[in-house]
Amino acid sequence: MSSSIAGVADFERMWRDLAPVGRSASSGGYFRQPWHSAELELRAWFRETATARGLEVEEDPFGNLVAWWGPETLGSGTDRVLTGSHLDSVLDGGAYDGPLGVVSSFAAVDLMRSRGVEPTRRLGIAAFVEEEGSRFGRACLGSRLAVGATSWSEARELADRDGVRLGDVVEGAGDGAASTMLDGVATYVELHVEQGRGLVDLDAPVGVHSGIWPHGRYRYDIAGRADHAGTTRMEDRADPMLTYAMTALAANKQARLSGQRATFGRIDVRPNGTNAVPSHVTAWLDARAESDDALAALVAAVEKQAVDRAGRDGTTVEVTPESVTGEVAFDAALRDSLVARLGGVPVLPTQAGHDAGILQDAGIPTAMLFVRNPSGVSHSPYESAETADCLAGVEALADALTGLVAP
Amino acid sequence: MSSSIAGVADFERMWRDLAPVGRSASSGGYFRQPWHSAELELRAWFRETATARGLEVEEDPFGNLVAWWGPETLGSGTDRVLTGSHLDSVLDGGAYDGPLGVVSSFAAVDLMRSRGVEPTRRLGIAAFVEEEGSRFGRACLGSRLAVGATSWSEARELADRDGVRLGDVVEGAGDGAASTMLDGVATYVELHVEQGRGLVDLDAPVGVHSGIWPHGRYRYDIAGRADHAGTTRMEDRADPMLTYAMTALAANKQARLSGQRATFGRIDVRPNGTNAVPSHVTAWLDARAESDDALAALVAAVEKQAVDRAGRDGTTVEVTPESVTGEVAFDAALRDSLVARLGGVPVLPTQAGHDAGILQDAGIPTAMLFVRNPSGVSHSPYESAETADCLAGVEALADALTGLVAP
Repeated sequence: MSSSIAGVADFERMWRDLAPVGRSASSGGYFRQPWHSAELELRAWFRETATARGLEVEEDPFGNLVAWWGPETLGSGTDRVLTGSHLDSVLDGGAYDGPLGVVSSFAAVDLMRSRGVEPTRRLGIAAFVEEEGSRFGRACLGSRLAVGATSWSEARELADRDGVRLGDVVEGAGDGAASTMLDGVATYVELHVEQGRGLVDLDAPVGVHSGIWPHGRYRYDIAGRADHAGTTRMEDRADPMLTYAMTALAANKQARLSGQRATFGRIDVRPNGTNAVPSHVTAWLDARAESDDALAALVAAVEKQAVDRAGRDGTTVEVTPESVTGEVAFDAALRDSLVARLGGVPVLPTQAGHDAGILQDAGIPTAMLFVRNPSGVSHSPYESAETADCLAGVEALADALTGLVAP
Repeated sequence: MSSSIAGVADFERMWRDLAPVGRSASSGGYFRQPWHSAELELRAWFRETATARGLEVEEDPFGNLVAWWGPETLGSGTDRVLTGSHLDSVLDGGAYDGPLGVVSSFAAVDLMRSRGVEPTRRLGIAAFVEEEGSRFGRACLGSRLAVGATSWSEARELADRDGVRLGDVVEGAGDGAASTMLDGVATYVELHVEQGRGLVDLDAPVGVHSGIWPHGRYRYDIAGRADHAGTTRMEDRADPMLTYAMTALAANKQARLSGQRATFGRIDVRPNGTNAVPSHVTAWLDARAESDDALAALVAAVEKQAVDRAGRDGTTVEVTPESVTGEVAFDAALRDSLVARLGGVPVLPTQAGHDAGILQDAGIPTAMLFVRNPSGVSHSPYESAETADCLAGVEALADALTGLVAP
């Protein structure tokens, strides 16, 4: 963004505005769960940032936001271009996962304007809601609702950890509510911080994603029998914690051996008392693999080992897939034109789900840019990005969008 | 209690009064954590039940209750006899663990009165607070405070899961608060539901405990590094869940092989998100063994395996003993006289901690009676006791107490 010092100052101010919102003083991580105070503050920030730029803000019934550059009548009506990302975070997440795409989109519009770009197609900046699934357990919930992949009648019954229903949180979404934010959108480009070390290894600030590994979340309900931790002989127990522990180790081993990913990061134990053998353990498997077949094989292998162990522990296991997303290949023509325009940046797959995958799956040609993350770590306070790389990302996004809206 | 039909009716009415308090409609278990509403209701019930019998209620600064039969001047002042138990439960516990001892004590006094017993020593019925440690994590907290084994300046800083300090919950316990409820107490007899199958195997309704296995609670703080569950390669992780899982399995195996007990029933994961490798796992080991040496060996073996595994996982483990109680042998002379008076009932050790152990350790000669539990299960909604066995327990307790207060 060497062409605009004012742009750099605006970019840095946006980060200063966002930095304190939902930040934990103890960990340095972010807690920006949808429809809680920090995320609501980010939505207000989004509206102000858009309004200050003369962009028109649209909110769909589910809380997805778009800031439009150019009047509704601009272009053919079916050639709109969308960019953006999300503002919510995982529990104790990083600063960039989500917000980097939104902030960079505003900065790219600033840069395009400073360069005198005159769009002939309408350009929107989106902030999809509940991308992480950290509150209602369904990743990419906002974009799934926007494209209609998840119905509102199903989604409204989802409950958070406190038992609060989504339908009671989203004000004004009645029966048959539907989103029109994607009407006429012909292309989506999402910029995101990298969530691994690909660009570090290749010594490049910016890359393009080829596609997304298939992935899913599977709930394990393991039932045993509560007992006194002191008086019950080991051989008389039906302890679901043991079944869980073996399953967590088996998942890790299976993923290591096959070059895939499997994680148990969330667990809920009842009654969760020190001197009580638990009656129930509920745990969630996050599994990802390079192909749909590899994912199915990984998930089946973990489940088999859990069931085998349950037989020995006297417990029972029930596995419920909560969300499974097949392999996504981003639009090849769009990807190739982007790579050419950006002077041959690296192309790599990602193992992380994104709203971009949902839109591509819904038939909207989609591309993803990603910015180097020196730590390689994400979903963590240790996630990082250098300012110079972020600015390179803004420039790449501005170039890509210019090619799309003012060809 | 064949000698008193009225006594049986009163006994059954006490159970009817207690049955709904803190009961979960879904599990049928009890949630009676100290200083929460259900337990406060039980304390009010205790006062009413005592007052209805003309017993004088004393409450010490920490919430321990005693209902006294006979005036303060009765006896030598140093020959008082105490019976009773506790009213709190574990999370989702049974109906009898604790309340059986308190209800049976009131019923035993009723029976003694109906038989015309005239005590020459003062007899108290105690309800010790926070016996299970389910809220502030310290088992037998009330009795430890009463005997001075735990100081109030230390205990007041204990916090529950919501961060509420004990010092802010216990009203009116200022600096240097001390209990006088045990002043002059020369003997303690606690009746409890059995927490295993000992009496079932021996086909006996009532038994006497010889002593308590040494036992302890050890907090495991396992630290790793939060990461994205999809994008972080398995070999790049420092996942504390794996260290935990291996430790839980190792504890179980170690206890099985040595004939002791080891349980991980409580865990707290941060951030506990499906798509995040955890940054921290805190888990509690409950360990019990037949001797102090066996307990030390068991605990050391589990810790060693945890530390070994942490080395491979790239995590760290810190183990903090939260409470460790050495072997308790109940007073031999008291035990022998009780067994003789009750016609040779079985004598067995228990693996469960009790306030009785704290009082014995503090130099008060103590005995424990226990009543058959057909399920053998406790700290669970499945805990059970037959009415006929409970009445046999009341009769045994009345006989034992009669021998002590009206020899």
